[in-house]
Amino acid sequence: MTTGVRRRMGVEERREQLIAVALQLFSDRSPEDVSIDEIAAAAGISRPLVYHYFPGKLSLYEAALRRAADELARRFDEPLEGPLGTRLLRVMGRFFAFVDEHGPGFSALMRGGPAVGSTRTNALVEEVRQAAYEQILRHLGIGEPPARLRLVVRSWVSLAESTALLWLDGREIPRAELELQLVHDFAALAAVSAAYNAEMAGVLARILAHEPADGPFGELVARLASLVPGDAGPTREPAPDPMPGPAPEPR
Amino acid sequence: MTTGVRRRMGVEERREQLIAVALQLFSDRSPEDVSIDEIAAAAGISRPLVYHYFPGKLSLYEAALRRAADELARRFDEPLEGPLGTRLLRVMGRFFAFVDEHGPGFSALMRGGPAVGSTRTNALVEEVRQAAYEQILRHLGIGEPPARLRLVVRSWVSLAESTALLWLDGREIPRAELELQLVHDFAALAAVSAAYNAEMAGVLARILAHEPADGPFGELVARLASLVPGDAGPTREPAPDPMPGPAPEPR
Repeated sequence: MTTGVRRRMGVEERREQLIAVALQLFSDRSPEDVSIDEIAAAAGISRPLVYHYFPGKLSLYEAALRRAADELARRFDEPLEGPLGTRLLRVMGRFFAFVDEHGPGFSALMRGGPAVGSTRTNALVEEVRQAAYEQILRHLGIGEPPARLRLVVRSWVSLAESTALLWLDGREIPRAELELQLVHDFAALAAVSAAYNAEMAGVLARILAHEPADGPFGELVARLASLVPGDAGPTREPAPDPMPGPAPEPR
Repeated sequence: MTTGVRRRMGVEERREQLIAVALQLFSDRSPEDVSIDEIAAAAGISRPLVYHYFPGKLSLYEAALRRAADELARRFDEPLEGPLGTRLLRVMGRFFAFVDEHGPGFSALMRGGPAVGSTRTNALVEEVRQAAYEQILRHLGIGEPPARLRLVVRSWVSLAESTALLWLDGREIPRAELELQLVHDFAALAAVSAAYNAEMAGVLARILAHEPADGPFGELVARLASLVPGDAGPTREPAPDPMPGPAPEPR
């Protein structure tokens, strides 16, 4: 990315270079701590020339965040094939890879960073969330989701976001563990909603209908089931496990 | 709150009045849509006098958000008595009551609102989250939480926040249902973490050890367990499917 060789670039080429340089710098440090001077130096051009392409610091940040948001949203793309748990696990792998690569930039995007107060930045974040939300509904094959499913999907998207941000703060837990955990969290949140609502129970039954025993959903259910005492019911001993079986009952 | 009668107030009394008036207006409309003129009118004083007490719009907003954040944090206080699920359900009741009363103000606090870009506002939000986090650990009786428990508690706090924000957008689902759901979500997220980690399994076992069968945790476990066939485990028979549509696999 950095080069000491000055050469003439076209307008678009130069803008692309500056965005790439900025994103590269944001992967190690927060955008707030990266100056235009550093970006100019890394791009091998003068500070005024940076301003020629981006009228202010904010506009370069916004362009870089726009690029990052687009890339992140692209990682949600997943073919509509195979068990749902496996698809979601693959997406989580790409999501955490992005978070891993763009650590400080991701935090800045999600927390507002130096462009905080910019309604454009907030809109970008909402766009990424919306992309995730729509992808999930597409995979579930549900065109007009009931209110409770909308809530489960959106709140899970928010959970994935906060889990990634918390992970970045120290990276104490192996990434792969959290990728799998979030897949399970989705099933768990849907199951809780299904435990009290017949419509959600139907949705969950359809979701789980085609999951194989060795897929991530199947594996979780097996692990949890093994913790449940045989005589399931309110009078049994406390179990360390409030998790569902696959077929919720309507009320 | 509003009064046409002008009377002399002390400095602190006037500041308190203006904060109360602002919070009252923020409970119906977003702070962004409330002008200093309206606040002045509702307080029965002139616009310049408002500026006498608060040098700028932002400083009044910040004072009002400070007050709201303190009140919200106070609602997390709960005696260390009785089953954990019941305590958490009571806190959720007070939390949603706050969200209900302060709708637009709560959204503004959590989304940044007009004071976005203010590091003080961000710090306020983090303070509220931290207060919730510490209360939960206090009730769990865990002084030095392992990394996975910290993640579960913090990510659940974030889930509660986003669930409340999503609920405010249309209020389609009864509030009481979401209060109970969040208690269950906590148990579910802890259970997912416990399914793969022995330390978390120990924590969860301690949490659930003293929960009564008719408390919120016990009720959820019973409901979910009633969906699990008697011989829990990966080789059990398929559950009777109460729902129309494809039957779930017995994994």
